Amino acid sequence: MTGVLVARRVVVIGGGAAGMSAASAARRTEPSATVTVLENGPFPSYGVCGIPYYLAGVVPRGEDLIAYPADEFITKRGIDLRLGVGTTEVDVVGHTVTTSGGEALGFDSLIFTAGAHAIVPPIPGVDDSRVVTIRRLDDAIALYGQLNDVRRAVVVGAGYVGLEMAEALTERGIDVTIVDRLPRVLTTVDESVAAIAEEEARRHCTVRLGAGLIALHPGADSIGVELEDGIIETELVVLALGVRPATSLVAGLECLPNGALIVDEHMRTSHENVWAAGDCVALHHRVLNKPAFVPLGPAANKAGRVAGVSAAGGHASFPGIVGTAVVKIFDLTVAHSGLTLAEAQAAGLDAEATEMTAKSRAKYYPGAQPMRVRLIHEPGGRLLGGQLAGQDGVAQRIDVVAAALHVGMTIDDLADLDLAYAPPFSPVYDPLTQAAQSAQFSRAKRNAQTKEGSG
Amino acid sequence: MTGVLVARRVVVIGGGAAGMSAASAARRTEPSATVTVLENGPFPSYGVCGIPYYLAGVVPRGEDLIAYPADEFITKRGIDLRLGVGTTEVDVVGHTVTTSGGEALGFDSLIFTAGAHAIVPPIPGVDDSRVVTIRRLDDAIALYGQLNDVRRAVVVGAGYVGLEMAEALTERGIDVTIVDRLPRVLTTVDESVAAIAEEEARRHCTVRLGAGLIALHPGADSIGVELEDGIIETELVVLALGVRPATSLVAGLECLPNGALIVDEHMRTSHENVWAAGDCVALHHRVLNKPAFVPLGPAANKAGRVAGVSAAGGHASFPGIVGTAVVKIFDLTVAHSGLTLAEAQAAGLDAEATEMTAKSRAKYYPGAQPMRVRLIHEPGGRLLGGQLAGQDGVAQRIDVVAAALHVGMTIDDLADLDLAYAPPFSPVYDPLTQAAQSAQFSRAKRNAQTKEGSG
Repeated sequence: MTGVLVARRVVVIGGGAAGMSAASAARRTEPSATVTVLENGPFPSYGVCGIPYYLAGVVPRGEDLIAYPADEFITKRGIDLRLGVGTTEVDVVGHTVTTSGGEALGFDSLIFTAGAHAIVPPIPGVDDSRVVTIRRLDDAIALYGQLNDVRRAVVVGAGYVGLEMAEALTERGIDVTIVDRLPRVLTTVDESVAAIAEEEARRHCTVRLGAGLIALHPGADSIGVELEDGIIETELVVLALGVRPATSLVAGLECLPNGALIVDEHMRTSHENVWAAGDCVALHHRVLNKPAFVPLGPAANKAGRVAGVSAAGGHASFPGIVGTAVVKIFDLTVAHSGLTLAEAQAAGLDAEATEMTAKSRAKYYPGAQPMRVRLIHEPGGRLLGGQLAGQDGVAQRIDVVAAALHVGMTIDDLADLDLAYAPPFSPVYDPLTQAAQSAQFSRAKRNAQTKEGSG
Repeated sequence: MTGVLVARRVVVIGGGAAGMSAASAARRTEPSATVTVLENGPFPSYGVCGIPYYLAGVVPRGEDLIAYPADEFITKRGIDLRLGVGTTEVDVVGHTVTTSGGEALGFDSLIFTAGAHAIVPPIPGVDDSRVVTIRRLDDAIALYGQLNDVRRAVVVGAGYVGLEMAEALTERGIDVTIVDRLPRVLTTVDESVAAIAEEEARRHCTVRLGAGLIALHPGADSIGVELEDGIIETELVVLALGVRPATSLVAGLECLPNGALIVDEHMRTSHENVWAAGDCVALHHRVLNKPAFVPLGPAANKAGRVAGVSAAGGHASFPGIVGTAVVKIFDLTVAHSGLTLAEAQAAGLDAEATEMTAKSRAKYYPGAQPMRVRLIHEPGGRLLGGQLAGQDGVAQRIDVVAAALHVGMTIDDLADLDLAYAPPFSPVYDPLTQAAQSAQFSRAKRNAQTKEGSG
């Protein structure tokens, strides 16, 4: 025991990545505690992000996405993992959880890791069995076989999950139409970078933007997708409209307007006996310096651990996020970290963008591809975000931006970094260095003009 | 003019990457200056690092390695670029340079960017035309055609240039033997990582280690390479024994024992009118906190600019290096940044290593490859270096280590970074995160044992 709290009974609601990380960490921290996990689905922690690749046939079996078998948690880690057991009520004051089986479980520490629900719009026809969301592995396994009979599909929502699903279904030989009510794809990057993603999607699918979904019309052999500007007949509708934190069971706790729980650095909620992690929480965003809802896997795992250690009486802190993500869109990779220009401006920051195209390798080396680099920064130089799009060398390059944002680097610091060079991997000035230098150059030019103007 | 110095006459010795960067920057900084570049070879600035890929036939023409044609510098940038003109004497006190043509050129500022010579051992037979070094593009172009008639080659030196050349010659269908007097390859990484590189080299070439070169015996149809443990008959000998700064012309200036010029952050040497950059200087190493000779392309370009700005009276500073490099060895990529354990210990630092193997992608995603990750750090946590080896996702991942080293991060900071995740590009815990967590775990275990021991 390292803390003052003695957590004899730890209950974890939700056995996903955050929940199983939390449960394991709680057991390690306080071996004498009983740790019970209530998971309403049939599987413990699995790679939700891998579902599109399973559906595409790239990953052979759905079970491949499961990190550890249930037995690993039960036998080896000594966790009371209950699969297929939901939670119907949480009484934080009375320190009791009621299971779907009607059992009342008392707790000293509760860890809430119930995740998020896929958003389903309240329109006619969404209950048809040919209308699906991509969130649960058991649903995906059920869908897998059905895909053999599908010739046409409509993906509603052109965010990263929608684009990944469009790719997955295309891989299965299905004609895919992506629709979105916005006139653009991928709002996690600014429009100029999103346009590159859109172009790539259009090379493989039909993309229909700026037309909201009004209703679904299930027929015998097909389902009509009614948009503001017409109807598309299809055999499958995939809703990829984002997620909403599944926090109705703990509605009294402090949260963002969307329901994401507010937590401190130890992942403790506004109730002293309740911790939380995963897709149901808001995390400290280091660039915004406030809580933000960015539900992604790495933070769910890390914050789950912190919640588990803390809930069991140990000491651990979550350092916050900078909002880093990467997505494969057919042959393109798009990555970003920090804020977009739109997000920075919405946050009231004095922000500007520097954007350029560089080569991914020495220009004479085979396979060198254009890479779009966009940096968001304050006029004075503080880096606020970065966006990359290209076919080569994008994924880990964004991590340099993530490291830079983590410590609050400026464009000058970024330009100064001693990045690796060899012709097969980068130009002698790395694309990130080039972009940082370009931002420096613009600033110097502006400063010179200002001087002239005032002299 | 931004400084107090009026540099009417800037002379640059050496028209490589550093020299042409310096000359261009000097012109931009002080448009009224005359900038003269003396380059003894036939080409201005080219990608020396691209030579192995040209020889391999991967890059079609030697001229492809030239960044800009001479005319770009002369006509567009207004630089008096003199190709084929060497320098025979530098009189720093008299502010005069003598060219190979016998002309005396006065200077206000001298920028010394003469680069480095390939090391040639003082043994019999090295003057034979079948014994070559890989340093100059004109030599490489001459060699290119000869390679068609070569069946067997010996590469002397198993550093990164030797390994790159072994790959290049193998690509040309040549049977290659790599020899080195040391019992290992690639001293820029620790032995455990070098062993992975050695294994990869052995899949494609003969590797003969621990046998020093004694003499070369040129015959009519072949040349005998006499090692301490035998003779190898071959048709071509490539010497890849590293480089030595070409600083004999400025022998009076302060330098490291190997001749690398000591410079300040503005790239000024110990003489107030002489600046230097490129492979002839020692650069401030941020991890060692002292000058180090790490002659690589990116720093040559950046420091060349700083030297040019400074020599023309402007203000610019070079931030220092952390010693980042990456090399392709057949299908393997090896990258490192900062210090090896051996280097850290030699520098008197209390250093330890954490090493592990991670997957390059989600374990279920096709193409996931093992990646060796080795972190060098102080027992308390300060990161001192990192080494990576693998077939997938290595090159830009080292840049995260470079960014971490640049600002003096600890293993805890590294573990905290919000790195990008998607199944095609990384596991949910990035290999770097896993390694940092492993280092944290070892430290926690040791601390617990220490407590027990003293309790």
